[in-house]
Amino acid sequence: SANRLAGFGTSIFSEISALAARYQAINLGQGFPDFAGPAFLKDAACSAINADLNQYAPSTGLPTLRAAIARTWERHSKVSVDPDAEITVTSGATEAMFATIMALINPGDEVLIFEPFYDSYPPNVLMAGGIPRYIRLHEPRWEVDFAQVRAAITPQTKAIILNTPHNPTGKVWSRTELSQLAAIAIEHDLLVISDEVYDRLVFEDYQHCSIATLPDMWERTVTISSTGKTFSVTGWKIGYAIAPNSLTEAIRRVHQFVTFASATPLQAAAVVGLNAGEPYERQLLQFYNARREQLVKVLRDAGLYVLPPQGTYFVMADIRDLGWDNDAEFCRYLISEIGVAAIPPSAFYHDGYQSGMVRFCFAKKPETIAAAAEKLKQLG
Amino acid sequence: SANRLAGFGTSIFSEISALAARYQAINLGQGFPDFAGPAFLKDAACSAINADLNQYAPSTGLPTLRAAIARTWERHSKVSVDPDAEITVTSGATEAMFATIMALINPGDEVLIFEPFYDSYPPNVLMAGGIPRYIRLHEPRWEVDFAQVRAAITPQTKAIILNTPHNPTGKVWSRTELSQLAAIAIEHDLLVISDEVYDRLVFEDYQHCSIATLPDMWERTVTISSTGKTFSVTGWKIGYAIAPNSLTEAIRRVHQFVTFASATPLQAAAVVGLNAGEPYERQLLQFYNARREQLVKVLRDAGLYVLPPQGTYFVMADIRDLGWDNDAEFCRYLISEIGVAAIPPSAFYHDGYQSGMVRFCFAKKPETIAAAAEKLKQLG
Ligand SMILES: CSCCC(=O)C(=O)O
Ligand SMILES: CSCCC(=O)C(=O)O
Repeated sequence: SANRLAGFGTSIFSEISALAARYQAINLGQGFPDFAGPAFLKDAACSAINADLNQYAPSTGLPTLRAAIARTWERHSKVSVDPDAEITVTSGATEAMFATIMALINPGDEVLIFEPFYDSYPPNVLMAGGIPRYIRLHEPRWEVDFAQVRAAITPQTKAIILNTPHNPTGKVWSRTELSQLAAIAIEHDLLVISDEVYDRLVFEDYQHCSIATLPDMWERTVTISSTGKTFSVTGWKIGYAIAPNSLTEAIRRVHQFVTFASATPLQAAAVVGLNAGEPYERQLLQFYNARREQLVKVLRDAGLYVLPPQGTYFVMADIRDLGWDNDAEFCRYLISEIGVAAIPPSAFYHDGYQSGMVRFCFAKKPETIAAAAEKLKQLG
Repeated sequence: SANRLAGFGTSIFSEISALAARYQAINLGQGFPDFAGPAFLKDAACSAINADLNQYAPSTGLPTLRAAIARTWERHSKVSVDPDAEITVTSGATEAMFATIMALINPGDEVLIFEPFYDSYPPNVLMAGGIPRYIRLHEPRWEVDFAQVRAAITPQTKAIILNTPHNPTGKVWSRTELSQLAAIAIEHDLLVISDEVYDRLVFEDYQHCSIATLPDMWERTVTISSTGKTFSVTGWKIGYAIAPNSLTEAIRRVHQFVTFASATPLQAAAVVGLNAGEPYERQLLQFYNARREQLVKVLRDAGLYVLPPQGTYFVMADIRDLGWDNDAEFCRYLISEIGVAAIPPSAFYHDGYQSGMVRFCFAKKPETIAAAAEKLKQLG
C-alpha cells in the first residue's frame, strides 16, 4: 500500500460501533440519530425516486439544491452567495473536506488543526502531502490560546481548519474568537477551511457565526456543511462546500474525479428539507435541547462532571472523579461491563493526549438515554 | 489551488451535457439511461427509506450488500470471495477507482493506461502523485499490441488500469488478451486495477471475464464495478471494489476518510437489485441488445461507418466518410446544428489523438433513438 497510509489507522467510529454491536451496548458513541428523520423528508426522497430522478446529477450538484443551500445561507448569515459559482454539492461533508484539502494544499504545506479534532482532518492533510500542525484547545472551556496559534505559524503555513460548533467538545466559537482567528488568517494570508456541520445545533444564547462572513474573510474561506445532522439522515451523505469562485473551481475539479456526483434523489429531498426553513429548525432545536438536558442530568447523576455543550449533539464528561484517567480503557470497560458505548477523545489528539473525558452522543430517543441511565447507575 | 490540478480540466461529460441542454439536443453523449430504473428497485429504495435505514452505513458497506455482491461475483466467476475481508462499498465506481489509486500508488510510481481511457483515470493517478503512461488500442478493432505494453514498462511501473467491457470503444477483452496481460503483470510484479462497470452489458457470443479470476492474478488485482449501469440508476452512486484483504485494507483506509460511507437506503435497495440475479440480467441484456441494433442501424443509415460494440452501452461511429476529421468540431456541429449530442473521444487520449470517430450512447428509450434518427438524416 502507498506510503501516505502510514500516518493513519481505522476510524474510531467504526471501531467503537463494532464493539458496541458485539456487546449489544447502548450506542452513545458514533454520532447519529437513533430516531427517524422527518416524514416529509422521507416522502420527498420517495417522490424523487418515483419521479425517476435516479440518473447522474450535475457534478456540481442539482441546481435546485444549490439554490436552496444559497437561500439557507443567506437567511442565516445575511450575506448572499452565488449558487452557480460558489456552491458544490458533495458526498457528505467528509468528501467536501477531503476535496477542499486536495484542491488547495500542496505537498509540504502546513495546515493548522485544533485538538481535539474530527478524525478525518489529519488523514486528509496527509493524503494531500501536507503537514498537520496541532494546537490544543484548553480545558475545561476549550479555550483558544491565540499566542499558540501565532507561534505555530511558519512561512509554510497555508491553511487553518476550523470546526464550529466543535466536535467533540460542543464549543461554539464566539464572534470575538473568530475575529481573532480571522485577523491572524488575514495577516499571514492563510486559507480557512471551516467545518460547520452542526451549524443548526446551538443551544441557549450561543450563536453560530460563519467566519466567512467576517470582514475580508470571504475570499479566503471554504465553509463546509451538510444535511445529515440537520435532517437526522446521516446516511444520505449530502454535503456541500461554499467558497468564492476561484476556490470553488479548484474544489469542483477534484470532486468531479473523486465521486463525480452524489445521490440524485437524496439531493432532491434535501431541497424539500432546506425549504422547511426556520420552523423546522426551531422544532429540531427544541428536541435537541431536551435531549441535551436529559443526558447532562443522566451523566451528572452517574457521578460524572459535565459542562453542558454550547452546540453539537455531543457532551464531554469527566471520568476522573470515578477514578479513571485513560479514556480508551474507560470506554472499553463502559462498553463491555456497563453496556453503554462512548468515544474516547484521545483518538482526536495527534499524541493521544488524555483530557480525562469521554464523549457521549445525545442524538438519541428519550428512551435510549433513559435506558443508558439505568446502565450507568452501575458506575457509582 | 494546488499544483496537482494543473494536469486536468473539466470532465467532458459535464461539458457536453451542458451544451446538449443549451441547444436542447437529444443527448446521446453522457452515458446514462433516459428511462426509469426497474420498479422493484425503486420500491426497495422507498421501503428502505421508510424503514428508517437512513443513518451511516458501516464504512465498508452494509453487510447485506457485501454479501449480495459476493454472491453475484461467485455466480459469474465461479470463484469465491469473502465479503467481510475483500469487498468495499464506495460512492460509485468513480470513488472506488480513486480510493484504490490513492491507496496503492506512491508519488513517482508509473501507471499504464490504455487509450482511449475513461476520463477520471489520469487525474486519479496525478492526484496520487503517480505518472500515467499511455498505450493506444489500435483501430478499427481496438487491438492491444502487447509489445507496446512491454515496452512501456520501467522499474517504476506499479500498476495497469484495465477497463473491460471498455468505454468508449465497446471492446470486451478476450480471455486470451487478458491472459497475455496477466502474464506481463505477473512477470513484472504489477497490480491490475480493473474497471468492470459494464460487466453485465456484453453482446452476442462475447464473454465478460474478470482478470482477477485468471491463475495467480487474485492477489494483484482490484476489480471495480457498480450498480448504476446494471440497474439503470447511475445517480445512486453505489459502487464497489473487490480485492484480496491486504489491498482491501488499504482501500478501506482511504475510503473511510474520503466519503466514509455511501447512501444507506440505496445500498439496501442494491441488495434487492442484485438478488434479482440472472433473470433480471437476461431481460436487461435483451433490452440493450435491441437498442444496440437500433442505434447501429440509425448511425449506418446516417452514413456513418460503425462496428457494433461487443459490450457497454456505447457505439463508436466513424465521421470521416462524412468529410469530418476533428471529433470535437463535429460534436459541436452535431449538437448545435443537428440537435444530437455525442462525445468526442479525443478527450480520452492524453495527446488529443483524433481517431476519426465519435461516441454515441444507446442507453435510451427506443423513441429517443428514433428521434435522433430523424435529426441525423440532416447529416447526409
Ligand atoms: C462518519 S462517522 C462519525 C460520526 C460523527 O460525526 C461523530 O461521531 O463524530
Ligand atoms: C460520470 S458521468 C460519465 C458517464 C459515463 O460513464 C460515460 O459517459 O462514459
